[in-house]
Amino acid sequence: MPAPAQSTVAAVLNHVDANLAASRDNLFDLLRIKSISAQPAHAADCVKAAEWWRDQLTGLGFEASVRPTAGHPVVVGHLAGPADYRGPHVLFYGHYDVQPVDPVALWHSDPFDPQLVDGPRGKRYVARGAVDDKGQTLMFLEALRAWHTAGGGIPARITVLIEGEEEVGSVHLDAFLRENKADLVADVALISDTGMWDVETPAITTRLRGMAYAEVTLKAANRDLHSGLYGGSALNPINALTKILGELQDENGRIQLPGFYDKVSPVSNSQRAQWDALGFDEAAFLGGIGLSAPVGERGYGALERLWARPTADINGIWGGYTGAGSKTVIASEASAKVSFRLVANQDPDEVMEQFKRFVTDRLPPGATATFAAFSRSPGVEVNVESPHVRAALAALGEEYGKPAVLMGCGGSIPVVTSLRLVLGVDSLLMGFGLDDDQVHSPNEKFEEACFHHGIRSHVRLLAKFAGS
Amino acid sequence: MPAPAQSTVAAVLNHVDANLAASRDNLFDLLRIKSISAQPAHAADCVKAAEWWRDQLTGLGFEASVRPTAGHPVVVGHLAGPADYRGPHVLFYGHYDVQPVDPVALWHSDPFDPQLVDGPRGKRYVARGAVDDKGQTLMFLEALRAWHTAGGGIPARITVLIEGEEEVGSVHLDAFLRENKADLVADVALISDTGMWDVETPAITTRLRGMAYAEVTLKAANRDLHSGLYGGSALNPINALTKILGELQDENGRIQLPGFYDKVSPVSNSQRAQWDALGFDEAAFLGGIGLSAPVGERGYGALERLWARPTADINGIWGGYTGAGSKTVIASEASAKVSFRLVANQDPDEVMEQFKRFVTDRLPPGATATFAAFSRSPGVEVNVESPHVRAALAALGEEYGKPAVLMGCGGSIPVVTSLRLVLGVDSLLMGFGLDDDQVHSPNEKFEEACFHHGIRSHVRLLAKFAGS
Repeated sequence: MPAPAQSTVAAVLNHVDANLAASRDNLFDLLRIKSISAQPAHAADCVKAAEWWRDQLTGLGFEASVRPTAGHPVVVGHLAGPADYRGPHVLFYGHYDVQPVDPVALWHSDPFDPQLVDGPRGKRYVARGAVDDKGQTLMFLEALRAWHTAGGGIPARITVLIEGEEEVGSVHLDAFLRENKADLVADVALISDTGMWDVETPAITTRLRGMAYAEVTLKAANRDLHSGLYGGSALNPINALTKILGELQDENGRIQLPGFYDKVSPVSNSQRAQWDALGFDEAAFLGGIGLSAPVGERGYGALERLWARPTADINGIWGGYTGAGSKTVIASEASAKVSFRLVANQDPDEVMEQFKRFVTDRLPPGATATFAAFSRSPGVEVNVESPHVRAALAALGEEYGKPAVLMGCGGSIPVVTSLRLVLGVDSLLMGFGLDDDQVHSPNEKFEEACFHHGIRSHVRLLAKFAGS
Repeated sequence: MPAPAQSTVAAVLNHVDANLAASRDNLFDLLRIKSISAQPAHAADCVKAAEWWRDQLTGLGFEASVRPTAGHPVVVGHLAGPADYRGPHVLFYGHYDVQPVDPVALWHSDPFDPQLVDGPRGKRYVARGAVDDKGQTLMFLEALRAWHTAGGGIPARITVLIEGEEEVGSVHLDAFLRENKADLVADVALISDTGMWDVETPAITTRLRGMAYAEVTLKAANRDLHSGLYGGSALNPINALTKILGELQDENGRIQLPGFYDKVSPVSNSQRAQWDALGFDEAAFLGGIGLSAPVGERGYGALERLWARPTADINGIWGGYTGAGSKTVIASEASAKVSFRLVANQDPDEVMEQFKRFVTDRLPPGATATFAAFSRSPGVEVNVESPHVRAALAALGEEYGKPAVLMGCGGSIPVVTSLRLVLGVDSLLMGFGLDDDQVHSPNEKFEEACFHHGIRSHVRLLAKFAGS
């Protein structure tokens, strides 16, 4: 099949421009669904979001269905595309689930009542999921719609896979991929869940950190104790937990788990030079969130720490009396959620064992520790020489009038690993988020400029695939 | 006035025995009032408890009233006693407020629906406040009632002072004492809020630890952050807080605040010998709460650590995501409640400053710390040679048929200091609690044997005062 005529692509892009308000309305419909995967109370909302996607895909000619899993359901849609299509079979992956909204008091509007507000870069959308990942997935959907309506049909062979547990570690996705392998055959996975370099500079992400996320609970006495009657004799599990977790990093920010760095590869000098040339301003990056000085390992540049070095962060901690005023209690237990961002070659299962050993080696007599493991995924490096990456670079260059940056991302997209390991498919990460989108935080937002260019970039990428 | 005839004392004691069920019913009435001082939602219940006390005292001939404070009200009652009374004017102090009931799921019955249950030592009462301090104060009230009904009248000059903020640090009591000094003149303060050595061995407490209780909040970024996008660059306040608080004690349990031990006096060899002779079994003490090994400073005996050495306990900690599952967030702040048990001569204000310095000296760049101070009281040592202590020793010896122990208590009763400093009155601490009463914990209880003997001991003590 020849590449679509340039006039057709232009017509599709014009349609995108003329129908931006309708695309935004469509996104807002999805944003109103409270699909918080971490909270059992929102299970029905997750089903609702899945059904929304099914209906959208069906409306564009896909054969689409909501598929059950042991957790929240998955949506799968198929479109054969033109009979003479010779390009790659594209597996578009995204997720309809969102993070919890707490602390809800810090939102300026209802997280599930999307707002169109004026920002310094034009209009923006404010809601939980505005960018992660409802906004980013809707760009692809709207690109499909534009081709469907104004381009004589969608020009590529496409499978769509939208899951509902990305924010809780995609716990049931691997099983689903294994059981539906034949139904998910593709040549490349396309994912929009990453960021741009800045609002004017597109990017393809080629490096992702992995994750090992644990919860630890220290138990001491079999009941809460009066701190006066027992203080000086009875073990305080909060004191013990802070002592243990306070030793996670040394004075140089070096993580102290035994063997933690054994499989961490150093970054090449040329890679480091490329990142240095980007002129990343860490002071401004931190200033934007009210911080003055970086943390992390001494002796590494900012982008290297963010993209190519592992981390240890306590994501939550709780124990004892946390209400108003004072209570003179020695609690019977204390807990924390601790996550490690991993780089390529680190084994998340090994890190989880290292963490357990780190804690148990430091347990005072009389304390016991129990562990729960949440998401585990290794870090990823994408082959930047693949034809799919090159097609995306071309599409983005045309849309933005400047070359796209090949960058890293400090966050995890465990599905990239799953798609590689289970389906044998590499991922192309073309995302349109910005650093200040407040992902996972109150007042999450998505710039309309990013949404708009994102739709247009997907329109162009589909044309590239059709012409290849 | 001569001592009451022995036959009169016997008649009053018989009345106590015959009316024990009525005394218990009276206690249960008070226990049903949810007077949790820490929780604003229970402010009206605190007023209700104060009014209950006023009505009881009025019924016994007291001139009693509920007096407002800037917090929960105080009850004051006066009874002149016999015209020819020559004994000490007794100021009976107690508190009607109770601790919060969380975690409520661990209670076997409603904390405010008092239960009469069978235990290994006979009947016991289970409810929040059963012993601390509703049960203990009711012993005195019932002793007064027995004298009133069966003894020809209450034989002593008595002022009753019942406050409602003991469990939140008696924050408004000092001001009340200062403003009502003339109305609270007395020779000795009598307090039942401490424990016995064991169920058969009465005790007078002569040593109390003080308290400095602080809340600290570390703030870092101005919003919650995605731990992937910022991890390795942005300060995590939970990591920072655990690192700081993890250094509160060294490997030998020695508290690391600068200057913390400067004013701590060592215990004399004779005092240590007296305590060693009590044969305290720390392994059994800890075994009873499911612990196997003591904490605290190395090189000190158990009772010395509990009664004569200061402590540092984290009473609560919270920050970040604490719900079900995982959330990959770097929180913007983290908080902890930290209390120090103090011994005589340590200055709580100085300790509070030492703690602030300890934290601020360790703050990483970009973090700020804010502090709130709750209760502050110095430790106390009572003069064991006073005539009032001797009267109590005699009363307890007669009631139990064995000498009372002079012991220490690890808990704080800040009012003892206030009564000394503001009113110039020393305190006599005659309490009937047991170590396993689950004070401040779920399923708080009070043994009926303790309640019963406690009423009888107060009957006897009033006779001693009348005869002096």
